[in-house]
Amino acid sequence: MTEHPRTMRWNGNPDGWLTMIDQTLLPVQFKEIECKTVEDVWEAIKMLRVRGAPAIGCAAAYGVIVGLQTLESNADRDAFNYRLNEVTGYLAESRPTAVNLFWALDRIKRVAQENAELSPVKMHQRLLDEAKAIEIEDREMCAAIGRHGATLIDPGTGILTHCNAGGLATAGDGTALAIMFAASADGKEIHVYADETRPLLQGARLTTWELQQRGVPVTLICDSMAGQVMKEKRVQAVITGADRIAANGDACNKIGTYSVAVLAKAHGIPFYVAAPSTTFDLSLESGDLIPIEERLPEEITAGMGKQTAPENTEVYNPAFDVAPAELIEAIITEKGIISPVTTENVRSMIEE
Amino acid sequence: MTEHPRTMRWNGNPDGWLTMIDQTLLPVQFKEIECKTVEDVWEAIKMLRVRGAPAIGCAAAYGVIVGLQTLESNADRDAFNYRLNEVTGYLAESRPTAVNLFWALDRIKRVAQENAELSPVKMHQRLLDEAKAIEIEDREMCAAIGRHGATLIDPGTGILTHCNAGGLATAGDGTALAIMFAASADGKEIHVYADETRPLLQGARLTTWELQQRGVPVTLICDSMAGQVMKEKRVQAVITGADRIAANGDACNKIGTYSVAVLAKAHGIPFYVAAPSTTFDLSLESGDLIPIEERLPEEITAGMGKQTAPENTEVYNPAFDVAPAELIEAIITEKGIISPVTTENVRSMIEE
Repeated sequence: MTEHPRTMRWNGNPDGWLTMIDQTLLPVQFKEIECKTVEDVWEAIKMLRVRGAPAIGCAAAYGVIVGLQTLESNADRDAFNYRLNEVTGYLAESRPTAVNLFWALDRIKRVAQENAELSPVKMHQRLLDEAKAIEIEDREMCAAIGRHGATLIDPGTGILTHCNAGGLATAGDGTALAIMFAASADGKEIHVYADETRPLLQGARLTTWELQQRGVPVTLICDSMAGQVMKEKRVQAVITGADRIAANGDACNKIGTYSVAVLAKAHGIPFYVAAPSTTFDLSLESGDLIPIEERLPEEITAGMGKQTAPENTEVYNPAFDVAPAELIEAIITEKGIISPVTTENVRSMIEE
Repeated sequence: MTEHPRTMRWNGNPDGWLTMIDQTLLPVQFKEIECKTVEDVWEAIKMLRVRGAPAIGCAAAYGVIVGLQTLESNADRDAFNYRLNEVTGYLAESRPTAVNLFWALDRIKRVAQENAELSPVKMHQRLLDEAKAIEIEDREMCAAIGRHGATLIDPGTGILTHCNAGGLATAGDGTALAIMFAASADGKEIHVYADETRPLLQGARLTTWELQQRGVPVTLICDSMAGQVMKEKRVQAVITGADRIAANGDACNKIGTYSVAVLAKAHGIPFYVAAPSTTFDLSLESGDLIPIEERLPEEITAGMGKQTAPENTEVYNPAFDVAPAELIEAIITEKGIISPVTTENVRSMIEE
């Protein structure tokens, strides 16, 4: 397996440290940061040096481990528990809207409660094992999505993707990109077309970088070129990630995904969604119930530090849209492939 | 009629000067430049202070007039003709690929030849009249497109447009935007959604500015949001310009137009093209024969002065695409409306 930069990695025993890619410097500079204090991890999450729900969860879990290093070697259980609460409470405030952050911190705290009989030294090791388990589970989830998805990809396929559903948002290979990495590792010689993904350019900044690092051929295009690329038969499949999927399979993802799904349908190209089973919200009957966040106009009018529209221009800036299930050929999860995308098939795959 | 900035205007008699909007400063700053020498006009064309085929033609014609002002008051016909050749030759080199530039300069020279009996002073006046005629014809062409197109627009219509088919590229109201100005002047209370139009952002920079100047409500979106805006029923019509139209009605226009046309079809929204009859190239049977220019990767990877993709990223940057006739509800020319868009209907409108 080729060596490639990992979003994060733990170094050493419970007295070790966390190394992470500083994603704020990409794509101009590749630099890793060494987080040796809980403040370092807090700052990295806060400043988006690490981003993406699964990646934030893993980073926070490791943040607890470095946070516990400040305990005296002869600290008793009370001191340990006091510090554990302090550290988890502190980390929880780094990004107060990140669900995976709380999930990971709660999991670490629960393990501590369930193993209350352990000495502080043994507990520190036990919690590191749990943080590593969180990371490994995330990596296995990505790998499973990649493995399932790669079965859908023929050799020589051109694949269009939108936004970044890559490894940088996870501890592993990502979701949509995991499929491309797996297909590429299988020797299928794919070629990826990456939408730049306005307004925040995750495709240009992150997707192209990740694919280049892994040696997967990638061509960057503007979002407006997706139709032309399909018309010219440069791509035979579209794969994107998803932020939230309703019970009927309607998939909410970065703005522009809906347009890409419609264009794919018009060109007879299969549109695939790759996402872990945790992305499904079965309480929502359909995608119509998913609220669409509107973001600041400046992302569009001054997105790259330069004013590109007149002062006070009225802007509509929805952050997400919903690709309806009927446009989705298959949803690829770590549990398997959902196809055709129906409420029944979603439930039987996700609820089991 | 409301006062609004004009792309260009001539001031005074043959000893006057040409005022033009410096389009390189838009949308951040509105500033007019006063061209009092042929060098001023040459520089304005060269540096894209004035751009768009019809606008360049008009500017060049007026450039001849200021160029002739350097003649002594007692100059004879030979001196006049010598200077006329000098000035037209000089202006022709300002943008060597601009067809309208040569067309306008040739027209001025032909008028001089046809009126060889005039004294230099009278000839100077005659050529100014011709430059004004070129401008007036352009303004009338825009007005006629606006008038015809407005008949297709119902009150309260939301209209999506892509790129800038506006007045800034002409001496008048433009093509697609002329229809919006005309509909608005008719009191139809339209609302325009302008695609920002990556990579060069003509929609964000120019279309929003023009509509704001004329008091037409406009909302700026990213190109990737067009599908969502259609899905939300915010628009009931799409109107774009065209750079070249084949005999069967296939219309070549700024990259992204094809995607918008496909999306409009999928949503049951009429897609209109507005263009003067001079845009048609009846020697081309279909749009497949229109060559698509590829432009520099830096437009995408460093479009707004900031590096947004890794070094040496492979880029595909087609400048144009072709909306096939079957996706076009109607083509609106100064001569009238072509609908349905068929080879027969194109020929009978354009050749007559």
